[in-house]
Amino acid sequence: MQGLARTNMVTGKNYIGNQLSAKGNKTFQTFNPVLNKENSPVFTEATSEEIEEAVHLASEAFKEFGQISGDKKAAFLDAIADEILALDDLLVQMYCSETGLPEGRAKGERGRTVGQLRSFAVLVKEGSWVAATIDTGDANREPQPKPDLRKLNVPLGPVVVFGASNFPLAYSTAGGDTAAALAAGCPVIVKSHPMHTGTGELVASAIHKAALKTNMPNGVFSNLNSSGIEVGQILVSTAGVKAVGFTGSIKGGRALYDLAAKREEPIPVFAEMGSINPVILLPKALENRAESIAKTYAGSITLATGQFCTNPGLILGIKSDGLTSFIDTLSNEIVTVNPTVMLHPNIKEGYLKNKEKVVSQGGVSVTANYSGVLQDNCAEQAIVSVKGEDFLKNTMLHLEVFGPFSMVVQCEDEKQLAAIISNLEGQLTGTIIADNTELEAHGNIVGALQNRVGRIIFNGVPTGVEVCESMVHGGPYPASTDSRFTAVGVGSIKRWVRPFSYQDWPNSLLPDALKNENPLGIYRTVDGNNSKGKI
Amino acid sequence: MQGLARTNMVTGKNYIGNQLSAKGNKTFQTFNPVLNKENSPVFTEATSEEIEEAVHLASEAFKEFGQISGDKKAAFLDAIADEILALDDLLVQMYCSETGLPEGRAKGERGRTVGQLRSFAVLVKEGSWVAATIDTGDANREPQPKPDLRKLNVPLGPVVVFGASNFPLAYSTAGGDTAAALAAGCPVIVKSHPMHTGTGELVASAIHKAALKTNMPNGVFSNLNSSGIEVGQILVSTAGVKAVGFTGSIKGGRALYDLAAKREEPIPVFAEMGSINPVILLPKALENRAESIAKTYAGSITLATGQFCTNPGLILGIKSDGLTSFIDTLSNEIVTVNPTVMLHPNIKEGYLKNKEKVVSQGGVSVTANYSGVLQDNCAEQAIVSVKGEDFLKNTMLHLEVFGPFSMVVQCEDEKQLAAIISNLEGQLTGTIIADNTELEAHGNIVGALQNRVGRIIFNGVPTGVEVCESMVHGGPYPASTDSRFTAVGVGSIKRWVRPFSYQDWPNSLLPDALKNENPLGIYRTVDGNNSKGKI
Repeated sequence: MQGLARTNMVTGKNYIGNQLSAKGNKTFQTFNPVLNKENSPVFTEATSEEIEEAVHLASEAFKEFGQISGDKKAAFLDAIADEILALDDLLVQMYCSETGLPEGRAKGERGRTVGQLRSFAVLVKEGSWVAATIDTGDANREPQPKPDLRKLNVPLGPVVVFGASNFPLAYSTAGGDTAAALAAGCPVIVKSHPMHTGTGELVASAIHKAALKTNMPNGVFSNLNSSGIEVGQILVSTAGVKAVGFTGSIKGGRALYDLAAKREEPIPVFAEMGSINPVILLPKALENRAESIAKTYAGSITLATGQFCTNPGLILGIKSDGLTSFIDTLSNEIVTVNPTVMLHPNIKEGYLKNKEKVVSQGGVSVTANYSGVLQDNCAEQAIVSVKGEDFLKNTMLHLEVFGPFSMVVQCEDEKQLAAIISNLEGQLTGTIIADNTELEAHGNIVGALQNRVGRIIFNGVPTGVEVCESMVHGGPYPASTDSRFTAVGVGSIKRWVRPFSYQDWPNSLLPDALKNENPLGIYRTVDGNNSKGKI
Repeated sequence: MQGLARTNMVTGKNYIGNQLSAKGNKTFQTFNPVLNKENSPVFTEATSEEIEEAVHLASEAFKEFGQISGDKKAAFLDAIADEILALDDLLVQMYCSETGLPEGRAKGERGRTVGQLRSFAVLVKEGSWVAATIDTGDANREPQPKPDLRKLNVPLGPVVVFGASNFPLAYSTAGGDTAAALAAGCPVIVKSHPMHTGTGELVASAIHKAALKTNMPNGVFSNLNSSGIEVGQILVSTAGVKAVGFTGSIKGGRALYDLAAKREEPIPVFAEMGSINPVILLPKALENRAESIAKTYAGSITLATGQFCTNPGLILGIKSDGLTSFIDTLSNEIVTVNPTVMLHPNIKEGYLKNKEKVVSQGGVSVTANYSGVLQDNCAEQAIVSVKGEDFLKNTMLHLEVFGPFSMVVQCEDEKQLAAIISNLEGQLTGTIIADNTELEAHGNIVGALQNRVGRIIFNGVPTGVEVCESMVHGGPYPASTDSRFTAVGVGSIKRWVRPFSYQDWPNSLLPDALKNENPLGIYRTVDGNNSKGKI
């Protein structure tokens, strides 16, 4: 139990494997946006020596952790979930104090985080996720004997995870990236988020306890504090790191992607970045129910002060009475919502700056902007409107305004609408609001939208990312740096594994997943047939 | 039939979709290394205008080709295979004249190429490769209704393929990258290889005929000639291109990777690059059968003049009488092999240059170098030997010498052997030669090797890449730019697809793979269960 913090108090230190460590001089505090003051814990930024040690320990831990059984990994993941729940109110309070988000949201996100960990535990315990395939040999084949080949997924090695500002639990320290990487057999080093470092340390303490309880090798997990970008830059550039997971801004994600691509050994970076999540309003839907759609969207745009990566920031329709009525209702509705705090004064500042940038572009008119009294760090929600031709020629209008904001584009006709969609950057989601009868008639719109997004939604809102295998949370650049993967759902484990093949290997020395006897009882593809059987 | 060449003659022109085109002024010829003279056809390099047109046509074709049924894609792939076979002797002769490789190799590689196309046809006809998953909704779930989510793999868009010098058929114009991309639904633009441009044009004519016969959209395939690197650079930088497949040198592959990473929209590059394919000789195997191992390896090292990416360029053993005997026998055997021509004078020149670079390093002794009379463009095979400590401290010795060459490293002990393996760059393959009883005792060696390779072989040779689902042809950088994929086997289709998710989409408008009725009768994961059933 050496080096183990036996208390739930926040220490402000880094977890370098099992060791609490604070060798540096640079300190910082997090901020409570509701109280409009700094929180009391003082965090010490990780030094380059500590970073190196964390990567070294992770590389050493990988030798063991990369090979352990699914049962043991499952026990570890379940123990993390248990320890997070055991933090109870301490975690919820810390979460709220560092984000301004309400207790209900904290508990909901905790549930999601624990649920993700447990679903990966189920996945690796069952075991078929390794995608074992076996092609048996044939010594008598002419002209050459056919070798025996057996393939399975193996972990890449140490993964660095950068948490998101807007999801301190579900997309951070023990969030989807971490859960998937640990499930794969990759040690994880978290670059803790500077806005919720206390929440991060508490979750790190839970992972640390779980690792000790389930006898994981030292270095399977580390948690590094930092207030700026330097710790992350060093981490991504360090040779022992084999992959990176990131959730955040385009600027941040792209910078890490560029760093990783420049390495002597380039490594994969899966960054889930910004998105304006276009919503297409088709004519009949507008004609029949413009007002109810507007009311639904007033809620979606302001949910959690608009601080979701799936927030609907762009609404597209063809000029009509219905669209005018939609804009009017949306504008009227949205100012009735009580403004709420943003995560941090810097986020609020970014919101105002980006909103101002967009509003100052030619042709943009503000149709709603909350003008009541604002508490500190609260954001005034706004709706703006612009003509299709102005949007088409000015990519500044494609800017993500992170916050309770949306832009309605009034297109001349369907052709212009299709052109706008085709010219959009890649998006996490696209939504089509339509009457049942009209969707089929707008195949070109649907086709254009599919080409730009990772997930397409019919008559709903993009906010709310269901955690299940069929979810794609990702999409063409810049929604993500690699559209071939998703950040949500157990399939996200594929980001951290590579296929590995054994040729003519002795049966007794093969990993269990590939042995003739199929001791794990998993599904395998044997000579082209899917089977749980023996060979 | 406009623009269609109705003859099998080589025209020297580019295929810009269905159009034969030669707008440029830059021309070049290929070379016959056996006759030591240029081949007669004159090829015209593609212009930037032609490149742009090819990408434009591919982007347009994608709108249709990205959506067509598996049956239609299968018919196209099978037709390509048929048309390649119909080229008959014309193709075989052109292949031999442009590579110096023997007729038997040409026919064998043609069989492999046709086999790959047909196996992808089977895959897409059957249809389950799209990995359809369905999570049905639940309107009554609390606190929020559960949406209906359905996911499948969709193609990325136009793919650019760079063929390999050493596989004019199986890894070139209609090789594995092209077959996988077309199977996925991605239009393909081939940057034809300057050393076998005639072979490339003939295969392109076969693809072109197959596309017309099976009514594929114009632009589904283009073939661009070039003698230098400029055409490829422009292609990879063009916005409409969505992914790149490459087989060749580290220098070439890395340059394309860097270009793609620098784009405003970065795109995935799967480059299969060089490898020295380490072979580990364990002590007992050396003690019991050093000579027979040496004889086998003399054959593997000189196979096809050593021009395989899986050529065993590095052999590692611990100092012993057995290792000495191995080196002696290998050295004696290899000089009895009749030297054969290399693919091109430039390849021969590269062989001599790289061999000289390695031989001139400290501690390297040449134990065999063919010294008989050499025909033009033939390569003298060679074996060199070096001490483990010299190899460890000098990464110049890790250089791939593409050709009939191998280096034997004599390690002091097992610890040094393990250190050398751990410090190797990523490799396509690693081979362990061992007696059955000793493998288990050397787990650290095996573990270190697994960490550096894509495929591990027991008591065999790395040359010979079986085409089957369990094959991994790829590996940690620089064996490939992304170890998460393989270039061989139907699983290689994953390089060119992304998951896409439909939320609450009307059943009748879903792609067939996701409809309740399962009209394609494919395997799907429905609410966690694998099934061919309806919902």
